[in-house]
Amino acid sequence: MVVRDIDELPKNSANYTALTPLWFLERAAQVHPTRASLIHGSRRYTWQQTYQRCRRFASALSRRSIGLGNTVAVIAPNIPALYEAHFGIPMAGAVLNPVNIRLNAATIAFLLGHSSAAAVIVDQDFFTLAEEALKICSEKTKGFKPPLLVVIGDENCDPKQLRYAVGKGAIEYEDFLESGDPEYAWKPPEDEWQSIALGYTSGTTASPKGVVLHHRGAYLMSLSGALIWGMNEGAVYLWTLPMFHCNGWCYTWTLAALCGTNICLRQVAAKAVYEAIAKYKVTHFCAAPVVLNTIVNAPPEDTILPLPHVVHVNTAGAAPPPSVLAAMSQRGFRVTHTYGLSETYGPSTVCAWKPEWESLPPETQAKLNARQGVRYIGLEGLEVVSTTTMQPVPADGKTIGEIVMRGNVVMKGYLKNPKANEETFANGWFHSGDLANISSVEIENVMYSHPAILEASVVARPDEKWGESPCAFVTLKQGVDASNEQRLVEDIIKFCRAKMPAYWVPKSVVFGPLPKTATGKIQKHLLRAKAKEMGPVKISKL
Amino acid sequence: MVVRDIDELPKNSANYTALTPLWFLERAAQVHPTRASLIHGSRRYTWQQTYQRCRRFASALSRRSIGLGNTVAVIAPNIPALYEAHFGIPMAGAVLNPVNIRLNAATIAFLLGHSSAAAVIVDQDFFTLAEEALKICSEKTKGFKPPLLVVIGDENCDPKQLRYAVGKGAIEYEDFLESGDPEYAWKPPEDEWQSIALGYTSGTTASPKGVVLHHRGAYLMSLSGALIWGMNEGAVYLWTLPMFHCNGWCYTWTLAALCGTNICLRQVAAKAVYEAIAKYKVTHFCAAPVVLNTIVNAPPEDTILPLPHVVHVNTAGAAPPPSVLAAMSQRGFRVTHTYGLSETYGPSTVCAWKPEWESLPPETQAKLNARQGVRYIGLEGLEVVSTTTMQPVPADGKTIGEIVMRGNVVMKGYLKNPKANEETFANGWFHSGDLANISSVEIENVMYSHPAILEASVVARPDEKWGESPCAFVTLKQGVDASNEQRLVEDIIKFCRAKMPAYWVPKSVVFGPLPKTATGKIQKHLLRAKAKEMGPVKISKL
Repeated sequence: MVVRDIDELPKNSANYTALTPLWFLERAAQVHPTRASLIHGSRRYTWQQTYQRCRRFASALSRRSIGLGNTVAVIAPNIPALYEAHFGIPMAGAVLNPVNIRLNAATIAFLLGHSSAAAVIVDQDFFTLAEEALKICSEKTKGFKPPLLVVIGDENCDPKQLRYAVGKGAIEYEDFLESGDPEYAWKPPEDEWQSIALGYTSGTTASPKGVVLHHRGAYLMSLSGALIWGMNEGAVYLWTLPMFHCNGWCYTWTLAALCGTNICLRQVAAKAVYEAIAKYKVTHFCAAPVVLNTIVNAPPEDTILPLPHVVHVNTAGAAPPPSVLAAMSQRGFRVTHTYGLSETYGPSTVCAWKPEWESLPPETQAKLNARQGVRYIGLEGLEVVSTTTMQPVPADGKTIGEIVMRGNVVMKGYLKNPKANEETFANGWFHSGDLANISSVEIENVMYSHPAILEASVVARPDEKWGESPCAFVTLKQGVDASNEQRLVEDIIKFCRAKMPAYWVPKSVVFGPLPKTATGKIQKHLLRAKAKEMGPVKISKL
Repeated sequence: MVVRDIDELPKNSANYTALTPLWFLERAAQVHPTRASLIHGSRRYTWQQTYQRCRRFASALSRRSIGLGNTVAVIAPNIPALYEAHFGIPMAGAVLNPVNIRLNAATIAFLLGHSSAAAVIVDQDFFTLAEEALKICSEKTKGFKPPLLVVIGDENCDPKQLRYAVGKGAIEYEDFLESGDPEYAWKPPEDEWQSIALGYTSGTTASPKGVVLHHRGAYLMSLSGALIWGMNEGAVYLWTLPMFHCNGWCYTWTLAALCGTNICLRQVAAKAVYEAIAKYKVTHFCAAPVVLNTIVNAPPEDTILPLPHVVHVNTAGAAPPPSVLAAMSQRGFRVTHTYGLSETYGPSTVCAWKPEWESLPPETQAKLNARQGVRYIGLEGLEVVSTTTMQPVPADGKTIGEIVMRGNVVMKGYLKNPKANEETFANGWFHSGDLANISSVEIENVMYSHPAILEASVVARPDEKWGESPCAFVTLKQGVDASNEQRLVEDIIKFCRAKMPAYWVPKSVVFGPLPKTATGKIQKHLLRAKAKEMGPVKISKL
């Protein structure tokens, strides 16, 4: 006799509500109303104020009939309005599309058209860019309906540009907020699967793909990102990472969950970073490896050293060279290296680089670095499968495979792109397109330390013996004598042999410029295509 | 034109799975397979081993047709088997009912009957208690089907008791595990609303009520409990709080999420606590105020002081007297005071007591202590409403009201008790039955510092002028001269006036023994009933 009573209690409004990061803001405003939520130059808001501003934001959209099913684009650097957009837009039921400010007008035009943006909210310094994009839209799209246009003024910028925008019919952001109700009665989504944000991946051969995220995933990733990083209540977070980059890896919402303080930065410069650390007691920031370089190589007059306290840094993508990591560590920064994609709400696996690894032999380093595969809470599965058979490959550190993932912090899918969705979700997994087991990052690290190499990118190339083997694309430093290419290749391979396991050593080395996206990311998939075109490495070759 | 494409992407197996704390264990075993999961005396398990043992557990249940819809009772102190039950039982789809080991056989018999326990898993030292309870069940219940009986041996205990149990037909726990498959292919629940645990509130006038919790809530509370307490990856947690008490406030599951280490304790004694702190580098433990007392008042030879590192302590329920908190702080313990109920998965609001508050005037202390209302993430609403009209009362620190809550960390409901569910979930809120605004805890703290008072409990009493006003029930210390009761009352009230805001001072003081539950908790609802019976305080009285 099975007693089913135990499962029969229904949901009610006291014990069930949608998971949404909007709750974090409501809570922060109630439990820490007077704590600083956000500081931007001379502007400083409390959580109560931020909550009110976001409710005004939602109300102002709602009063203009923008809500469920609509997308709102925001084109801005790390300023308060972009932070507020992370709450104000979903509070109205709409979807936030934070646009990469480094894109050109034609690409932005594509984005606005593809997402049918109902409103464009743009920082004053990017107004002419938005204007140009909208012009392209109206020329290219039949029956194009111009979106609501809001311009964000910034007292740190030239007021002329703001006046120009207002003259062109844009509503000033503060006036827009004024038109909304600070007590707007927002509601959590009826279904936590509802979309919250849309972010476009860098377009390359094909058009950019729109990654759609939902409220549930954003809620879970916000908490997971705090837990994985030991980021506690009241953290002070510096916005070096663009918020338009996967919603700032969801740390936009995390900061509200922690009732912490956001420090905005219009532009990232070493001096500003050090000043913010000292002035606001910054505890955490995220940054691309290139920013770490800037921080490490800053002239002494731009730094404030020793750091007044430990600062935690999360860096994703290609691992910074160990020399940079070591220098960061010496200065008092505690660097965590993570890996992920827009499709997984930002970084979703972690490797805590430890300075004591510096002195270890490369094989041991490699073994330790394999720990990069420590997945975030919320990412319930991570495997490495063959790129050809789609079957799991042995985790032997030898066999190359593709990283596939699944869990609640995997995107809903690509917007209006059934073909890409079918491919990316094949066999019940999300296919990252990234390689694993042989750590291309680790191989690249070693190659970067070769005196002749400026940049290196390693991908898999078909291999008659191994199935696949590492192939390195390399650009050389200025002044390097490349007249004897064969000798240079041999020298690089010899260099690699001394510093890594034999099966990691690139079987092929190709010289030339590396293809990059608008944001400077090396386009590995183009290199993979190129490596494929080159045909398999012959058994006789080595 | 509303574009709904943005919300139309369906769930698939790559981007959606039920939220369940079972994922934490699977992840811990994969990302930290060799890290210590649990230490009990000379026994030490890794996360890989714990995962295997829990899968065996689930498999062994499953092979005996115990699964979805079934309840499994565990009667045990803080030993490995009870920890494993938190994963093994839900992995089989069944519901864990951890039984308070301090209950008598008749009450346990009621629990086993009410939940129709399909299995009883009992520590060897509590076997005769279980035996007695089952005897009562078979006598009282027509057609009673004896549950599967498993006895847990402990090398620290008398082997005779284990032999006795096996002789009575109980399966030894390790044999039971052996009968299960260590690779058992568990699945997350199809619906995260599925029940995961059942815990009975202390029975008093009525029968105990069975609080039913679900997978989703357990997942969220586990993460929230870590975040609120700054409990980070790799925490070392000492089991002073019984796991049978609201699943150890969900820290059972939190420890797996953090890939931390559980230190078991069969019995809580100051010496064992200090030894564990030093030996295992314990970072966190939870404890009732009485345990803090034990720790503070331990003879020097039982302590290891100064503490080798900071130890975080979470204490809930009645606030420990400030003197105890101060002494804890001096010794290096960082005490967090929380408030919650079984119905909210354990503590769900927090007040971080700060030693510097000691020297503040009582009004300021009271104001700071009001911060106790900082709700956990996952508790999306907390209000104070009138106990008579159910309408919100002003949060003025003067008007008494009942704490009501709602959110994802509120229970599913009481098992087979529609009447209680209707009352407790009235008006879309969970009704805690606890008072707020006037902090009875704070009043009690002051009263405890009166030289004549041994115990004090403050509840609301109807009041003609105020609607309700504080009424104190007090027991006196041995040797106190209680011959002139009126003078004693006046003395206590005068004492209170000097130390708290006027509107906090009890308008009524009643002497006599305080009614308590089996676990020693003062039964405030009985006192509330008594206060009500006394009728309203007349306007003329004060």
